[in-house]
Amino acid sequence: MRIEHDLLGDLAVPADAYYGVQTARALDNFRITGIPLAHFPNFIKALAMVKQAAARANRKLGNLPASLEQAISSACDEIIAGQWHEHFVVDMIQGGAGTSTNMNANEVIANRALELLGHGRGESDKLHPNNHVNLSQSTNDVYPTAVRLGILISYADLTSAMDALCAALRAKGEEFAHVIKMGRTQLQDAVPMTLGQEFIGFATTVGEDVERVHELVRLFREVNLGATAIGTGINTDPDYAALVVAELSEISGESLTLATDLIEATSDTGAFVTFSSVLKRIAVKISKICNDLRLLSSGPRTGFGEINLPARQPGSSIMPGKVNPVIPEVVNQVAYQVIGNDLTVTLAAESGQLQLNAFEPVITFNILQSLRIMTRAMEVLTERCIVGITANEAHCRSLVTNSIGIVTALNPYIGYQNATRIAKKALENGRGVTELVLEEGLLTVADLDDILAPEHMTRPRRFERRDSQG
Amino acid sequence: MRIEHDLLGDLAVPADAYYGVQTARALDNFRITGIPLAHFPNFIKALAMVKQAAARANRKLGNLPASLEQAISSACDEIIAGQWHEHFVVDMIQGGAGTSTNMNANEVIANRALELLGHGRGESDKLHPNNHVNLSQSTNDVYPTAVRLGILISYADLTSAMDALCAALRAKGEEFAHVIKMGRTQLQDAVPMTLGQEFIGFATTVGEDVERVHELVRLFREVNLGATAIGTGINTDPDYAALVVAELSEISGESLTLATDLIEATSDTGAFVTFSSVLKRIAVKISKICNDLRLLSSGPRTGFGEINLPARQPGSSIMPGKVNPVIPEVVNQVAYQVIGNDLTVTLAAESGQLQLNAFEPVITFNILQSLRIMTRAMEVLTERCIVGITANEAHCRSLVTNSIGIVTALNPYIGYQNATRIAKKALENGRGVTELVLEEGLLTVADLDDILAPEHMTRPRRFERRDSQG
Amino acid sequence: MRIEHDLLGDLAVPADAYYGVQTARALDNFRITGIPLAHFPNFIKALAMVKQAAARANRKLGNLPASLEQAISSACDEIIAGQWHEHFVVDMIQGGAGTSTNMNANEVIANRALELLGHGRGESDKLHPNNHVNLSQSTNDVYPTAVRLGILISYADLTSAMDALCAALRAKGEEFAHVIKMGRTQLQDAVPMTLGQEFIGFATTVGEDVERVHELVRLFREVNLGATAIGTGINTDPDYAALVVAELSEISGESLTLATDLIEATSDTGAFVTFSSVLKRIAVKISKICNDLRLLSSGPRTGFGEINLPARQPGSSIMPGKVNPVIPEVVNQVAYQVIGNDLTVTLAAESGQLQLNAFEPVITFNILQSLRIMTRAMEVLTERCIVGITANEAHCRSLVTNSIGIVTALNPYIGYQNATRIAKKALENGRGVTELVLEEGLLTVADLDDILAPEHMTRPRRFERRDSQG
Amino acid sequence: MRIEHDLLGDLAVPADAYYGVQTARALDNFRITGIPLAHFPNFIKALAMVKQAAARANRKLGNLPASLEQAISSACDEIIAGQWHEHFVVDMIQGGAGTSTNMNANEVIANRALELLGHGRGESDKLHPNNHVNLSQSTNDVYPTAVRLGILISYADLTSAMDALCAALRAKGEEFAHVIKMGRTQLQDAVPMTLGQEFIGFATTVGEDVERVHELVRLFREVNLGATAIGTGINTDPDYAALVVAELSEISGESLTLATDLIEATSDTGAFVTFSSVLKRIAVKISKICNDLRLLSSGPRTGFGEINLPARQPGSSIMPGKVNPVIPEVVNQVAYQVIGNDLTVTLAAESGQLQLNAFEPVITFNILQSLRIMTRAMEVLTERCIVGITANEAHCRSLVTNSIGIVTALNPYIGYQNATRIAKKALENGRGVTELVLEEGLLTVADLDDILAPEHMTRPRRFERRDSQG
Repeated sequence: MRIEHDLLGDLAVPADAYYGVQTARALDNFRITGIPLAHFPNFIKALAMVKQAAARANRKLGNLPASLEQAISSACDEIIAGQWHEHFVVDMIQGGAGTSTNMNANEVIANRALELLGHGRGESDKLHPNNHVNLSQSTNDVYPTAVRLGILISYADLTSAMDALCAALRAKGEEFAHVIKMGRTQLQDAVPMTLGQEFIGFATTVGEDVERVHELVRLFREVNLGATAIGTGINTDPDYAALVVAELSEISGESLTLATDLIEATSDTGAFVTFSSVLKRIAVKISKICNDLRLLSSGPRTGFGEINLPARQPGSSIMPGKVNPVIPEVVNQVAYQVIGNDLTVTLAAESGQLQLNAFEPVITFNILQSLRIMTRAMEVLTERCIVGITANEAHCRSLVTNSIGIVTALNPYIGYQNATRIAKKALENGRGVTELVLEEGLLTVADLDDILAPEHMTRPRRFERRDSQG
Repeated sequence: MRIEHDLLGDLAVPADAYYGVQTARALDNFRITGIPLAHFPNFIKALAMVKQAAARANRKLGNLPASLEQAISSACDEIIAGQWHEHFVVDMIQGGAGTSTNMNANEVIANRALELLGHGRGESDKLHPNNHVNLSQSTNDVYPTAVRLGILISYADLTSAMDALCAALRAKGEEFAHVIKMGRTQLQDAVPMTLGQEFIGFATTVGEDVERVHELVRLFREVNLGATAIGTGINTDPDYAALVVAELSEISGESLTLATDLIEATSDTGAFVTFSSVLKRIAVKISKICNDLRLLSSGPRTGFGEINLPARQPGSSIMPGKVNPVIPEVVNQVAYQVIGNDLTVTLAAESGQLQLNAFEPVITFNILQSLRIMTRAMEVLTERCIVGITANEAHCRSLVTNSIGIVTALNPYIGYQNATRIAKKALENGRGVTELVLEEGLLTVADLDDILAPEHMTRPRRFERRDSQG
Repeated sequence: MRIEHDLLGDLAVPADAYYGVQTARALDNFRITGIPLAHFPNFIKALAMVKQAAARANRKLGNLPASLEQAISSACDEIIAGQWHEHFVVDMIQGGAGTSTNMNANEVIANRALELLGHGRGESDKLHPNNHVNLSQSTNDVYPTAVRLGILISYADLTSAMDALCAALRAKGEEFAHVIKMGRTQLQDAVPMTLGQEFIGFATTVGEDVERVHELVRLFREVNLGATAIGTGINTDPDYAALVVAELSEISGESLTLATDLIEATSDTGAFVTFSSVLKRIAVKISKICNDLRLLSSGPRTGFGEINLPARQPGSSIMPGKVNPVIPEVVNQVAYQVIGNDLTVTLAAESGQLQLNAFEPVITFNILQSLRIMTRAMEVLTERCIVGITANEAHCRSLVTNSIGIVTALNPYIGYQNATRIAKKALENGRGVTELVLEEGLLTVADLDDILAPEHMTRPRRFERRDSQG
Repeated sequence: MRIEHDLLGDLAVPADAYYGVQTARALDNFRITGIPLAHFPNFIKALAMVKQAAARANRKLGNLPASLEQAISSACDEIIAGQWHEHFVVDMIQGGAGTSTNMNANEVIANRALELLGHGRGESDKLHPNNHVNLSQSTNDVYPTAVRLGILISYADLTSAMDALCAALRAKGEEFAHVIKMGRTQLQDAVPMTLGQEFIGFATTVGEDVERVHELVRLFREVNLGATAIGTGINTDPDYAALVVAELSEISGESLTLATDLIEATSDTGAFVTFSSVLKRIAVKISKICNDLRLLSSGPRTGFGEINLPARQPGSSIMPGKVNPVIPEVVNQVAYQVIGNDLTVTLAAESGQLQLNAFEPVITFNILQSLRIMTRAMEVLTERCIVGITANEAHCRSLVTNSIGIVTALNPYIGYQNATRIAKKALENGRGVTELVLEEGLLTVADLDDILAPEHMTRPRRFERRDSQG
């Protein structure tokens, strides 16, 4: 152990820890979830990028010696490359508005930089976590900037997963274009459609969400770095804010801009609320799709049985041969988690007071978790479910043929009154609609073949009315 | 118009209004939902009961002349009997922690009492809304007490509705005791059960909730009347609190007790959170039941088709003969509303600060609305849906016979290996399990008749193992 | 009473009702909230616009005689002008996916059109609610289109209210530009800022939300009119969909387009989820602002006391002279309601199944309510609170002068070590920072005057470092 | 690697893994949160207890050879003692209704038991995960029973933490019994109270919740073990269910009973919804307390400044001497997480269908996480915050003396009119209430000393009215 010192006094820190006294205090204070910062590598990387950008800006403004800047930058490069993440040990849920996260980064970077300079860990008189690594910064601008950047460098995984899902659904839509089936509204037989139309519909809805994500993620490009404590930029050089944001853009490869109202930007969590809402919207839609997949594949004998999901694992230890829709089920659950997380984000956002939202850590935890699990759920849904779906074409067609719902297509030809009477009769006697129509001589076989051709029933069609329609 | 005066100056009030200046200000300040206090009659009645109890207690302690008490009491009696509710005009969502509700009551009662005494409305020197009607009270004890009492005199409608629903479900359970059907887990065919067992299960779950309501509603029997502003009981007689609670118990016929820690009781909204949670629990369960009813009645030809819900209205203007499960659908929506309302209650409860929760009006609005719509949803579900449900017994039985799931029942007799092989074969060839078992000579017809008898498949049974089971 | 007939048989309808048999059934089936369709006039108007557009399109395609179209159109014009809304009586929360709303509209329009043609109500052989008013339509395209249009013609009230609020906040920001005060983070004294900066920050945050609303409301411009039952457009003319949407654009003055994937558009509720999320985002921000206003005006003697909110009503019946922040309080409650409503929308959206979301009525109810109460809350906040706020300038300044937080501004000049020591000493002895700095001879009076000038403390400043800073 | 086989074919499993093929499949299928089952040790222990109980019951009924039972039991004992948890690797969020969790347990126990019997891992012909470890069981009874038991053996940590918190708050209440301070309603100065009353109020509210937890946790004592697949107990001995529950009670030391309606019990998640609601209620209350602590300790110079929270870590890297309320802040965030988790539980519960709720894994994850973080938050709040709180007694008293709110106490003696006039004058001129009362000769110094004595102002008091009071 080595002894370190801060405002509150001395504290022992493990000798081989890159982190220091303030991280050690935070470890004691926040034993909450057991999930450390290192659980989210892109967030750690984003923190290191921010620290590197600050060091560069400070050097350019003459506030940080080149040798220290170089050591800090090198340490940051290592972290960006994935090293030392295991030293980011503070719990994701923490008090202090992220100060402990910021200090964990400051301490690890300082100690690694000291090593690179040939000094020992904890020799803060040579290079100090606060005085040098955190120079011109406050947790209140560093933390939200790092969270935003962390999301920016992560979200492409989500949109890729969505694109892949969309493509897989569209491919199935094309594969199933010729499969005629009954559409259902309110779980009651409605009118015919193709299974292809149904899957294309799924693809459309996922595709729309990709657009939404791209639209809204730009809110994160606006950062408050340089705002320091409350947005007034106290104790920074007037040129610092613009410079550090430019450096960060270069380092990260992400186009970032400085918020125009830094007071507002320092306390505002609107972008997090919006992004979480988009994740919720995706969750709602993907959950609906999975609900539908489970319904359509219900069976094998006593359900809808229109499609088959690929088997991924034995379904039961007691029921031989049972296979369950485990992939849609896990996606549904991810959706519920994301919706719950969105509420946590909402609550934390609403509770911000005055010049800062002290609850950004729980916002960060929930958004990063939602982003990750939604991405993974999409991937698993595509790869382990959608691409392997097959259609029970004959069964689908026979459900249409035997349905009462096809009577709607006859409506314009035999009239609403006749159609209603036939429907009722069919329902009461368990007979088929076409059979009854033929029996009553309302239409010929040729008429029926024409009217009930899948390509005629599943789109608008000009017709000669014989009766008023409702 | 008549001119009235308060701390802020003069204001014109409609001449025929029983309410006065403070209500008029609240009308201007809180044009929000358009839903007035009068939307919830039991809440108005509870307010009048509180006012009557205070008047009686004040008279007994010598703080209110008998003539004034009598006039106030008579006015309250009228309101309890349902009169003058249209003068309770303030919006349910209001600032001021309920002060405007309290003053609306004080003013209506004062003006009606003045009339009964032969005076004109607004002659507050004779009988004053604050000095006499509100004597020894603060909004901060009157309002929460009235809300609690309002719930106490309303909730029996809910439990009655639940009892009726439970009874109707149980009756259906008995009616369907002989209907064998496939049970489903994860929407996949599982093992046989009876439709009776399914409906008895619904009844059980509703019945359990009735118990929960009775258990938790007692939290509302503890009131803070006498706490006045913050719970210290400032400016009240030491005997007042006990006396006024006793009076209120007598007037309302509800057994009420004084909270032991009045400071805590004045700011605490825990009972509301708990009650709202119970309503949410009921909503979750009843929604699950309605989801099941909609699934089981899906069809008529392309769904599960095990039961028929009674038709309540034409289902479609375009699809002849379509009938939809409109009653379960409205109940589902009520459930979603109640769950959303529970969140509003939660948010408002969490936001209370220091000695008072200023957001009790929105808590009150949401709980009273949830209580009402949940009660009505239960009633409509019982009367317009459950009692008219019929079973498609033959279809249910044929689904069992044709299912693969019955192989599970054969498991102990033919072994897990054989059962799995048979299941697979049946699935691949579209053949029946019994047919294959007979074909392979694994069991005799007599064996199968015995094993697959509904009464044997739907409960535990002692058997001779021929193979290890999984 | 007059007797009307539908699929389920005969039913008596009040003789003077414009609505008919199906509305009457819905009245019986859905006694839930007690809040009828007429509670939301813009929704009724939008329904009438849709019906008028359909009539015009049908006539142009030769499917509806000109005389009937004219009568229907005239009836719709009257409803758009505000007449007959009291005949829209069905409960906002209803089963049937909006069928009862659609039929309420069909029946009122048919009966009013019959009157205009000189016939009696209920003479449906002359002009039929289904066959003529609902021609080429299904609830499943009419209802969501009307909801979307209803929001489009309502939301300008919201953005106007937000613009006015933003302007009022900005005006206060300018008025308070010279008021120096302490900024606070985590409710602890931080560093100085101006009250103007704080209010400009509020204005910025509201302004950003106006942009979000404008951006997202365009999602509603895409409608599925012409999709009929499930999106295949069954039983419509191939030219109908494009034509009816063009008619609706012309009638409403709103630019509308036909969704490209009508199957998807008919079951998708993504736009509602997104819009509700935006309302939630606004709620979160406005609630945060109101929380801040209540904090900043806390007092008058024992709180922060930096600003005064205008008195709007007497605050207490027991505490003389008390005035409460009733306007921010009601806005907070509106925010909680909107957040709760967003959950209800989310739940209903997630529960949609297959080709239709049967729960759009509860979505509609919650979005329309949220839109209304949020608009009104903004208006009341602007007019009855923001514009009347005054600053306690001297008190604000004295809090800065006596604060320890100003030591941060001295940091670059006296060094972090000295600053920390001075801060600690001040805190322990209850003395002032400047007093101690002068006593120790660290800086001169002139230095302090320069460094602590408000214009220097509230923005970045180039300085000569005498010490490393943290 | 060793090769194992299941319904889907062969799969390689790490040679040193105790888990087997089905766990390996689940690892592939459910890469979601990265949080494995082992994150919750008590849940693993509960699973092992259930498996041991089943083995014992099966042996007693003659269905499992004693040698196998002994090996299984010993393996379970080791897991109960904390061994082998690292082999419980499946993600907490998983499809399949918990089948993968059940199989992970079956496989680890089987392989460890095989080792104890001197066999190699994977030699399932000797002792089989399904045929022997899972004998007479289904995931559908094992999984929910284990979750319930896992909560039962965990919740005492929560109630202990709550008891300790309650005691600490009560101790502070006694310590601060003599500290007179202003009570505040709606953040505005109200009437005096003691700081002791305030902390006793906190203690009361926490204490009430302990009772609620004890009351409701009993819902978990009712289990469905023996229900097997859907509650019919198919393929179990008629004596099995009662026996296995008795065994489980003995093993766990928890008093458990068999649910009376096993069909209902197998799909019902009501107990989880209720327990999650109780955690939410606790979260709401504890969050309110933490909000109050942060308000009361706001300052040090520009806030309420009534109490001091102990410093736990430096508050800022940029602001010298700043100390923040980090402990209440982390507790607030835990509360937001618990409330969000409750929503996830609600969503998952509502989505259960027919004979099973397939979403219990996400319910389990959220309840176990909420239980843990709430427990830890309570502990940290007690130990690192409450016990170290000190009062600024002089400041509290001076706020009372200078307040306008004390005029309420004078109300009964000088009359409401005079009181209001004095209050107004004091507010306008910045003068003290007592000073003005003396100046006007309304009361003597002796009167004031008597009336304003803390012990008189903070409770009810009999008085001689000189004027009517409002």
